[in-house]
Amino acid sequence: MHLFTSKFITKPEHVTELPGSVTTPAGFVAAGVQAGLKKSGKPDLGLLVGKGPCSSAALFTPNAAAAAPVRVCQEETDTGAIQGIIVNSGSANACTGEQGLKDAGEMVRLAEEYTGVPPGRMAVASTGIIGRPLPMDLMASGIIEASRSLSEISGSLFAESIQTTDRISKEGAVEVRLGAGTVSIGICAKGAGMIAPNMATLLAFVTTDAQAPSGLLYDILATAAGASFNCISVDGDMSTNDCIFLMASGASGVTLSPGSNDAGLFTEALAAVCKSMALKMVADGEGATKTVELNVTGASAREEAAFVARAAANSPLVQTAFFGQDANWGRIMAAAGAALAGEPRLEADIFYEGVCLARAGAVTDEPVDEKSLEKIMLQPEISVTLDLHRGSGSYTMYFSDLSHDYVTLNAEYST
Amino acid sequence: MHLFTSKFITKPEHVTELPGSVTTPAGFVAAGVQAGLKKSGKPDLGLLVGKGPCSSAALFTPNAAAAAPVRVCQEETDTGAIQGIIVNSGSANACTGEQGLKDAGEMVRLAEEYTGVPPGRMAVASTGIIGRPLPMDLMASGIIEASRSLSEISGSLFAESIQTTDRISKEGAVEVRLGAGTVSIGICAKGAGMIAPNMATLLAFVTTDAQAPSGLLYDILATAAGASFNCISVDGDMSTNDCIFLMASGASGVTLSPGSNDAGLFTEALAAVCKSMALKMVADGEGATKTVELNVTGASAREEAAFVARAAANSPLVQTAFFGQDANWGRIMAAAGAALAGEPRLEADIFYEGVCLARAGAVTDEPVDEKSLEKIMLQPEISVTLDLHRGSGSYTMYFSDLSHDYVTLNAEYST
Repeated sequence: MHLFTSKFITKPEHVTELPGSVTTPAGFVAAGVQAGLKKSGKPDLGLLVGKGPCSSAALFTPNAAAAAPVRVCQEETDTGAIQGIIVNSGSANACTGEQGLKDAGEMVRLAEEYTGVPPGRMAVASTGIIGRPLPMDLMASGIIEASRSLSEISGSLFAESIQTTDRISKEGAVEVRLGAGTVSIGICAKGAGMIAPNMATLLAFVTTDAQAPSGLLYDILATAAGASFNCISVDGDMSTNDCIFLMASGASGVTLSPGSNDAGLFTEALAAVCKSMALKMVADGEGATKTVELNVTGASAREEAAFVARAAANSPLVQTAFFGQDANWGRIMAAAGAALAGEPRLEADIFYEGVCLARAGAVTDEPVDEKSLEKIMLQPEISVTLDLHRGSGSYTMYFSDLSHDYVTLNAEYST
Repeated sequence: MHLFTSKFITKPEHVTELPGSVTTPAGFVAAGVQAGLKKSGKPDLGLLVGKGPCSSAALFTPNAAAAAPVRVCQEETDTGAIQGIIVNSGSANACTGEQGLKDAGEMVRLAEEYTGVPPGRMAVASTGIIGRPLPMDLMASGIIEASRSLSEISGSLFAESIQTTDRISKEGAVEVRLGAGTVSIGICAKGAGMIAPNMATLLAFVTTDAQAPSGLLYDILATAAGASFNCISVDGDMSTNDCIFLMASGASGVTLSPGSNDAGLFTEALAAVCKSMALKMVADGEGATKTVELNVTGASAREEAAFVARAAANSPLVQTAFFGQDANWGRIMAAAGAALAGEPRLEADIFYEGVCLARAGAVTDEPVDEKSLEKIMLQPEISVTLDLHRGSGSYTMYFSDLSHDYVTLNAEYST
């Protein structure tokens, strides 16, 4: 998989893409095995381990019905020193009560035991169907097998093991040239449905051989996530299980210090990698045929721009219009107007790939070349700008269209 | 069409259903003609007129991109004394700028001229595609024809003329026994997409031959709408054109006074009629195969219950699960948890038709009869209760499922 394929992302000059995965940065081993949770027989249990102590950062869903693994990480793991992550797909271990917490804790204990990662440094994540207890006998044998299979060449198996309805495996790696030397970043993620524009909206695992204190890693991760995973939407549903992990092995010998130029360059690189991965998630959204970039500008504040962008991005009417290749800008105006209900009359402009379709809240009398508009609507990636003319706040969202396949997938998934 | 067909509504004892429409109450005439806005050649222009002065009330969408007819009604019509309404389908006259305002004003002027309704007492409404100027030559000849066709037996033609993607014409009438005598109520409505849970979310026209001051009519209408049209959702999209009108001719000779027992009985009857119509709109929602009643109880306040109910009702994952006849309660828990993000851990119970599927936030170990659960999911109307265990606030929403037909309709509608 290539990371920088979308027109909505530019690869920074100091970054070079590598064929690779989470085991590309030195100091990490991984495994992906078939524990037996997925009926398909595909890999469903993954293990990612640092060969030595790591510094780390993690972001978790704020969902009040957060799953057991999220709670166990938050309550029992030293999230600044995570050295290993055990993760399963096929069952979310969410809404599973006390038993779920016990099971997630047992996953951690077993993974620590068989990998030798010290207590408190193993994180846990799950994805899949909500409300089913984990089959712990299968998990136990799977964790043992995964521990035995750990290797530097199994990053792709790990990536495969975390998928649910994903159509493509999402992984990649880059080399980052810093002043003090060269480091690498590896990433893999899963997410196709229940992708909403909010804190930590998927499972993502990022590794690097840079060395950095966990506080700095947290700042870097929060910045990168804010401009990537937090501004995408497939269906507006925030999951119970979302989390993003960043582990740094330090094996490159290159150290990042807070406020340094290198920290800035590394943040830029990580943000680009995360945005690239986030765009893959939108493009691979359940049933998605298109990725839409929605730039809301001229809002009275950034928060207002984000609120309007989210409302429009999550509107089924807006989404189905893009599926129908219909430049139905009126639905975007209606969604924005609904988001700004009670505010002064909306006098917004709307542009599709720079073509003005509405001016001051009304259909424009500027000539529109219907042929070129049709061409725009056939593109897999479409950029739309909504200028609210209320101030200088702006926000950009990326979302997918709503298609028949989304309905099929989500009507048939689960029981 | 029969009004009281849903299991979610009980007909009050003092109410008897009549075959009829908006012209069933004495004192009203209506028309529905083909002005030529719809390619299908179906009626697309309606006119509803009181034979004499009426008192009235109206509710309008708070959408900041509200359509020209909404603005003209709000700015130029005496909404307490509406004696006529001119309405077209096929074009929303929304996002049409100054020309749109002029056109809506011209519709009013023409309708007043040809019906003899005094200036300031003619309201206007539109529904259809956003962002297209009205073909005023067609409108003018249509308004003349409609004025000539006004009759006491054309209520159904009027109802037909306001439809867009509706599969069934939505109209009805009831007789209401009050202490002071008997009055009647007639209603028709349109709405299948862009139906969201907020102020005035559709077009609805209600007539009565009761006599009442406009202030009382406003209170009655607001109460009735709050418990009906404002708590339904098909797709969470709030329209630019929503409005509800209530016109009272007084022709029955029965007068309603504020605070009187009869006013209470009339409100109860009108609320039942509106709820019945709202349920028809959900059942006839674009592509809908099911109506779900979601009772959120145990919230810390009514507002919180409404917020959670709306989040769950508007979740595409929740909606597709019902289309798939899958009792996937985990998606409701996830949506509720997302709505309550950052709040203490959600310990909610979930019941489908009284069958407990989750207790204290987790899958229940109480035995569930899978056969009877399957039967429940096959029903066209399903009642779900979500008890948040946070307080005593409650709210009920009605929503439809998300099906392939919704996607087809909205991908193909318009251009």
